[in-house]
Amino acid sequence: MYIEIQRKAEVSISKQIYLSIIDHIRSGLLQKGEQLPSVRELSKQLGVSLGTAVKAYNKLEEENFIHSVQGKGTFVNTEREERVDSQEKMTFFNWQLSVQDYLPRSQFGQFHYVPEKIHLSSSMIDPGLLPNRYLEREISRVISQNPRILSQYGSIQGDEDLRVTMCEYLRGVEVATTPENIVVTSGSQQGIDLVARTFVGPGDVVVMEAPTYPGAIDVFRGRGATILTVPVDNEGMRVDILQNLCDKYKPKIIYTIPTFHNPTGAVMTLKRRKQILSIAQSIQGIIIEDDPSSELYFDKKPPASIKSLDQKGHVIYLKGLSKTLAPGCRIGILAASGSIFKRLLAAKANIDLGSPLLTQKVILPFIKSRKMKDHTKKLRTALKLRRDLVLELLSKKAPSEVSWIVPKGGLNLWITLPSWVDSNHLLVEAKKQELTFLPGSACYAVEHENHHLRLSYSYMNEQLLHQGITTLCEILASEISLKKKQNQSPYF
Amino acid sequence: MYIEIQRKAEVSISKQIYLSIIDHIRSGLLQKGEQLPSVRELSKQLGVSLGTAVKAYNKLEEENFIHSVQGKGTFVNTEREERVDSQEKMTFFNWQLSVQDYLPRSQFGQFHYVPEKIHLSSSMIDPGLLPNRYLEREISRVISQNPRILSQYGSIQGDEDLRVTMCEYLRGVEVATTPENIVVTSGSQQGIDLVARTFVGPGDVVVMEAPTYPGAIDVFRGRGATILTVPVDNEGMRVDILQNLCDKYKPKIIYTIPTFHNPTGAVMTLKRRKQILSIAQSIQGIIIEDDPSSELYFDKKPPASIKSLDQKGHVIYLKGLSKTLAPGCRIGILAASGSIFKRLLAAKANIDLGSPLLTQKVILPFIKSRKMKDHTKKLRTALKLRRDLVLELLSKKAPSEVSWIVPKGGLNLWITLPSWVDSNHLLVEAKKQELTFLPGSACYAVEHENHHLRLSYSYMNEQLLHQGITTLCEILASEISLKKKQNQSPYF
Repeated sequence: MYIEIQRKAEVSISKQIYLSIIDHIRSGLLQKGEQLPSVRELSKQLGVSLGTAVKAYNKLEEENFIHSVQGKGTFVNTEREERVDSQEKMTFFNWQLSVQDYLPRSQFGQFHYVPEKIHLSSSMIDPGLLPNRYLEREISRVISQNPRILSQYGSIQGDEDLRVTMCEYLRGVEVATTPENIVVTSGSQQGIDLVARTFVGPGDVVVMEAPTYPGAIDVFRGRGATILTVPVDNEGMRVDILQNLCDKYKPKIIYTIPTFHNPTGAVMTLKRRKQILSIAQSIQGIIIEDDPSSELYFDKKPPASIKSLDQKGHVIYLKGLSKTLAPGCRIGILAASGSIFKRLLAAKANIDLGSPLLTQKVILPFIKSRKMKDHTKKLRTALKLRRDLVLELLSKKAPSEVSWIVPKGGLNLWITLPSWVDSNHLLVEAKKQELTFLPGSACYAVEHENHHLRLSYSYMNEQLLHQGITTLCEILASEISLKKKQNQSPYF
Repeated sequence: MYIEIQRKAEVSISKQIYLSIIDHIRSGLLQKGEQLPSVRELSKQLGVSLGTAVKAYNKLEEENFIHSVQGKGTFVNTEREERVDSQEKMTFFNWQLSVQDYLPRSQFGQFHYVPEKIHLSSSMIDPGLLPNRYLEREISRVISQNPRILSQYGSIQGDEDLRVTMCEYLRGVEVATTPENIVVTSGSQQGIDLVARTFVGPGDVVVMEAPTYPGAIDVFRGRGATILTVPVDNEGMRVDILQNLCDKYKPKIIYTIPTFHNPTGAVMTLKRRKQILSIAQSIQGIIIEDDPSSELYFDKKPPASIKSLDQKGHVIYLKGLSKTLAPGCRIGILAASGSIFKRLLAAKANIDLGSPLLTQKVILPFIKSRKMKDHTKKLRTALKLRRDLVLELLSKKAPSEVSWIVPKGGLNLWITLPSWVDSNHLLVEAKKQELTFLPGSACYAVEHENHHLRLSYSYMNEQLLHQGITTLCEILASEISLKKKQNQSPYF
């Protein structure tokens, strides 16, 4: 178990231990029933006082994450009996537990694939809305036009044709770059990882929105960054708070999803985009502009990208193509300038020597043709319908204590519950009814807020959406009324 | 520029600075003509004495890597006039030079793709020897049998069919594992990276062979590991030296390529395989067994994998499929056990959420069928012919001062020159004749040896091999006779 203590952080050390153990449990890195080190061992291992370790364990026990057994030790709580057959084998591998890793959390993996019937937990697009048929038909032609496509490594930077085409495409969404300044990545997740491994090390300060995309938190935490967070309102990241943080801590990286922010759906105003860029310039910092879905607007086009405002190479722009086009291909691009770009390209060689050539060539003709434009238009219409359905159902059926933000594009809807309802508990109930969503706590890098949840309305068809939202509202209503009763109870 | 100083290392600090700057120049991270920080700036930045910085710069200047200009500063040497047109633009991005990165070297990227006519520098297989035609014909069938293959994310762990099939395949090369203990990676380069990011951090001790695979050095150096090296003889890694290092430093990771070692071609004996495993057990360490080409033996089958001897989960086994089957697909697998496996799988989610499904499904039927076996057999025959041709030419035409190791399998041949011949200089000459090879210095993690070179005989056809080896022998002969004359000169 890897617990990183940051002594200069504003969060108390016992709270850091508490949060880290919750991260481990939610990531599945600490499994149900697994034994924790004793408080004595832990305090020695981390170099903290015994009292600090005890305080962290007490809080975890209070909140039902762990329990201690007199004379035996402290264990992660189980919900039901887990498989015992693997116990014996584990003793062989017990030495492995002393091998320290650098993996503080990996929440995203846990929530990405869930075999439930109604899957509202990850922001993917319904395969029925993607151009599979076309791409499938094209593949034979792609292969015959590119002899030896399977037998040759692509270049580390990515296929030149694809970079030229993406450059053109990006001009359409108001991102200015050149093919020489693009590197093809295996999805935008790899783009985030590429930047982190190149520029973020232990103690480097990274600013993120709170809430934000869990997969990005996992990566920066894994590099040992000191993460500071800035809240989001309906105009995007709160620039006034960012300014204060930057004056005080001079972060190296500011990670933002300015358009159809994940998970809240907020769109950053042009004014704030300009302000963030000017802040980054003043501190000689890097902005990572993650842009998963600016094409998927429902009303009007969002403001220009921060990248398009950038003259001095402060912005590293990331665009995934997996989601909106072909998840089975896992392709994204990263655009940056100057020596920052040069260093990212060198790091790409170290990661994987370049993304597969086949998947790059498969999506190329589609993006090159007018089809991409038509497809995006079609997606906008279809997703808007689904969003409207969800909004309508929520306003009819959700308890009055629940609120949400109306997304103007993208794939997600952010719901806020009363502060005394924990969406992690709610998820346990939902799974019993074959329904999943993303608990909001996964989206916070530092202080978890447990009373939010993210619904993705893009993956399920109308019928399942209808069923899912109805069920969710029922679960919400029953949880809220239960909690209310408990609060009124004389024993509370 | 990122220079990591390890104060506890046995290499002097001025030598560490010297080696690191050479790494930066050879990686292209420091470009020709680029200005270095002044000795004063450098000593301040690294917290070392002025004398130490001066000593490093003097040695670099002596060896013609850099030069200083009175009143202007110190610059990386250029061989000829470089493009000046990008100079102006660079001033915009000058602030970027102060952004520190975590990228000490990336040699491999530099040598992987070279547009020369006779390409002996990277160990790839001639596309003419790969089953492109078959795979191309199969693709349409694969797609029609797997509807929605393009529109769905694969699982993070990798396609289950492929894992089952690979498990079967690995049994054939005597590697015991289960589909549950396999994760599909984007080539074995990603496998190395996955282990490094999960288990290697600043100051952790990693043992590597010297020489070894440059791409692995790049990755461990990038994690800030303290790398110790063990020489290789014709029975593989020198276990006696490994034992001494392990007694003293208790490394966390031992990275080895036991079969057809890259670059020397050595095969580790079964006895040493057992010894290494037992050493790893005694220090509770991890072995990374990188196995790019154990199928490609020319005489007899190599000994069983270390993984097959391992009961307690010490070995992380890596196998790439890109090289021998379909480089355009970039697929490899990693096999491990226990919590070490569990943690690697979690890290895979953070890197890229799983390798593309399309490329996994494309190679699956081939591996599943008997065709894979026939293909491997054919490769063995074809590569043996090419190796024999190279050996024959070398013994006829190479100067008597040059020696080499006869590889019993794999793709590479390791050549040793007289100690006073530098293969980096030789490469400059070779490129003038449109010929490339891998200079040996790229293969050393700590102390560079410059008088070796690696030839890959697998990529060029017989005719080009003939031409290439002949040219190389001519260049060698002329370089050696020139050096000899210089040594006899009264001015020497």
